[in-house]
Amino acid sequence: MYIILVYDIASANGGEKRVGKMLKHCRKYLNWIQNSVFEGEITEVKLKEMLYIARKIMNEETDSIIIFKSRDERWLDKEVIGVERMMTNNFL
Amino acid sequence: MYIILVYDIASANGGEKRVGKMLKHCRKYLNWIQNSVFEGEITEVKLKEMLYIARKIMNEETDSIIIFKSRDERWLDKEVIGVERMMTNNFL
Repeated sequence: MYIILVYDIASANGGEKRVGKMLKHCRKYLNWIQNSVFEGEITEVKLKEMLYIARKIMNEETDSIIIFKSRDERWLDKEVIGVERMMTNNFL
Repeated sequence: MYIILVYDIASANGGEKRVGKMLKHCRKYLNWIQNSVFEGEITEVKLKEMLYIARKIMNEETDSIIIFKSRDERWLDKEVIGVERMMTNNFL
């Protein structure tokens, strides 16, 4: 399964710390393609694991994660305008 | 065509002003679903128009826009974790 993940962490109440943790966490599973946007192939099991931990990092009352799932990456075309960065790296 | 649009505006050099302009601009064409994330049905012509104006708002050396295009919204499942907001509104 191919997914796009976007998170939005509220800046209040230690948000910056959560942003750092979330970034580090998501990069273990997906490619980081923009500030708070990730994409990549992932299994259902790995996705569940990732979200289980993400819920512990985030504040569910102020933060959000949106995931778009596609069975096949070929069903999605991607276009980047402006700065392109970290398109394929996956290191921590 | 169904698209997901995510922008990332650098905070330096008047970034806050660009964020406000970009938000207002994108909401004319798409549904605002998260901080800098939009989705919706759009025609090729409208998308071109939107991007033409977006390029004038953004600083292409520091900012970026990523667009994921799918011919059919049904090819994508969406999951939201945490705060869900502005899922369907489209007003300005």
